[in-house]
Amino acid sequence: MSDPRTRRLAALRASLEAAHLDALLLTSLPNVRYLTGFSGTSALVVVTAREVVVITDFRYATQVSEEAGAVARVVVEPQSLWSGLWKVLPELGALEVIGFESAHLLHRDFARLLESGSRWQWRPTIDVVEQLRERKDGGEIERIAEAASVATRALERVVERVSPGMTELHVAGMLEETLRAEGSEAFPFPTIVASGPRAALPHARSSPREIARGDFLLIDFGAVVGGYCADVTRTFCVGQPSDEQREVYEIVRGANARAASTVQVGMRGRDADALARRYIVDRGRGEEFGHSLGHGIGLEVHEAPRLSSTSENVLPARAVVTIEPGIYRAGWGGVRIEDDVVLEPEGPRILTSFTRELVEIA
Amino acid sequence: MSDPRTRRLAALRASLEAAHLDALLLTSLPNVRYLTGFSGTSALVVVTAREVVVITDFRYATQVSEEAGAVARVVVEPQSLWSGLWKVLPELGALEVIGFESAHLLHRDFARLLESGSRWQWRPTIDVVEQLRERKDGGEIERIAEAASVATRALERVVERVSPGMTELHVAGMLEETLRAEGSEAFPFPTIVASGPRAALPHARSSPREIARGDFLLIDFGAVVGGYCADVTRTFCVGQPSDEQREVYEIVRGANARAASTVQVGMRGRDADALARRYIVDRGRGEEFGHSLGHGIGLEVHEAPRLSSTSENVLPARAVVTIEPGIYRAGWGGVRIEDDVVLEPEGPRILTSFTRELVEIA
Repeated sequence: MSDPRTRRLAALRASLEAAHLDALLLTSLPNVRYLTGFSGTSALVVVTAREVVVITDFRYATQVSEEAGAVARVVVEPQSLWSGLWKVLPELGALEVIGFESAHLLHRDFARLLESGSRWQWRPTIDVVEQLRERKDGGEIERIAEAASVATRALERVVERVSPGMTELHVAGMLEETLRAEGSEAFPFPTIVASGPRAALPHARSSPREIARGDFLLIDFGAVVGGYCADVTRTFCVGQPSDEQREVYEIVRGANARAASTVQVGMRGRDADALARRYIVDRGRGEEFGHSLGHGIGLEVHEAPRLSSTSENVLPARAVVTIEPGIYRAGWGGVRIEDDVVLEPEGPRILTSFTRELVEIA
Repeated sequence: MSDPRTRRLAALRASLEAAHLDALLLTSLPNVRYLTGFSGTSALVVVTAREVVVITDFRYATQVSEEAGAVARVVVEPQSLWSGLWKVLPELGALEVIGFESAHLLHRDFARLLESGSRWQWRPTIDVVEQLRERKDGGEIERIAEAASVATRALERVVERVSPGMTELHVAGMLEETLRAEGSEAFPFPTIVASGPRAALPHARSSPREIARGDFLLIDFGAVVGGYCADVTRTFCVGQPSDEQREVYEIVRGANARAASTVQVGMRGRDADALARRYIVDRGRGEEFGHSLGHGIGLEVHEAPRLSSTSENVLPARAVVTIEPGIYRAGWGGVRIEDDVVLEPEGPRILTSFTRELVEIA
């Protein structure tokens, strides 16, 4: 199989030509990794019709050649990345109009372009590489699927060991160690273990709170394999659920199942969001589902496309998205069930196989 | 004791007045947390001479009032933070000139200011809040010290359990679980466990490589308590060190000791850097110490002041900085020893007590 970076760079160059850009300056690290393979935390990349140059610093001298040397010229700059850029750009032939990534360039660095780069015309671009990244290739889906299966295995091993009286932080620690043991390279976001009323905070942090009978226990976490993320949430009952807990859980489960089985290539993001939202609204809980249905995952744990009530974007084939409806009541608790789904042309395929039945923790 | 946020807001308002700004728009989340206490991941904050307003989204409705309600008006915006801003700003009295954070505002959002906020004059500012954050107060130092002691205890517990044949990822997982058990709220950066030749990569990721006799084992990791970070590195020998390993280790240890015991309030960043650099250069290894000596730590794991060969910044009293000299040889390995030090007016005080003697892992 050919190097996927070659295809990606060809697609990018077609976009640049269509936009009348002689070059693109990349400042988004995930976009840098997607196009060149370089996974360090310090890089500027310039792509022209003929060349790709990666500028990084001393710390990555060895790594950058290994990772990006096959598709890019590598420059290790002792001063700053920006002084490297001003040396490299004049060597790249007659460039006039250079695009930059408006959503990934700080105002401070934009000011550098105007000050030190005044011999070029700088044009803001939005989502040029992000659009390419929406459709995953086979290797990308394989890695997300492996991350999803690492996440599932880790959660299965940990849930058996959770019991009332443990703190949220303790459970987060057990889960993180198990994720490492199963092969996760990193944690794409801080593991959320939220119990009792804290499960009503959609972006809680794990805390020293002790898990108690009667609680919902919400666990939202990720895994990374080959740079690609999975993102999973399950909510458990500690002890026997009350009638209201069971009712809320079943509504969220129904909304998750409805959306995960009927989301389709070609829908707009808002139509996908509505699959779950209508289900919850029809059951009188619409006010308590305050966030959007989901988001793309890949090299980033939040990327395009967005599945939200305001998104007009059409979902492309082989996007991988989360489906994560939730119901939250301040002071009482909340439930979220989140799966990762590939939008195959023939229909959705769920990558996260952990059970969605209501599990009681004894 | 008075609420430290009150003092911080008063200091900020003095800076704004001196700069002839009627208000400051904050987009840096650590700066938001420092001034208001709000620790969510989605916020815009406006500070005027009289008011503080925090704008966030639904997910943080409960959390924002708890954390910031005592010092700020809280606005939970159903659309986007920016549409919230355009509603809030006209309510804040006669504002003409508003500062924004040039190093924390994306070009895309800068374009919003010009488009939707054209009735105000927008002025770029740099490091206004960051400068306040350099000098820590007693509560901040206490939290960093506690994070440093969590880090030390966790590493002590884990090193005893490491043995040849374990993978780097396995060791990272053990360390992370132990950090959680000791009370770390989060991992401020991905834990680095780098063995053998990988120890020569100053920013390695933990990998599936098995640790072997004859390796250096470099562990660089952090802990977080009350939002404040510690950042520690130790390098071990797996089995008996060779003469060259011992020689390199002792040079780095000497450089660390020299800098950590003599760094002083009032020095420039470059003078601090030189304390260790001269020591290493004098021993013929200057070329192999390719990064700077250290950086401030606090709410962020990298913040002002910088201890680098190009920094003219003067180190203020009660800054907390890392001291982390290293020597790296591609293909062979590397050593880094990193401590966290408070610059007390009477002299440096080291917060990280893990031994700096060469420890052999059997």
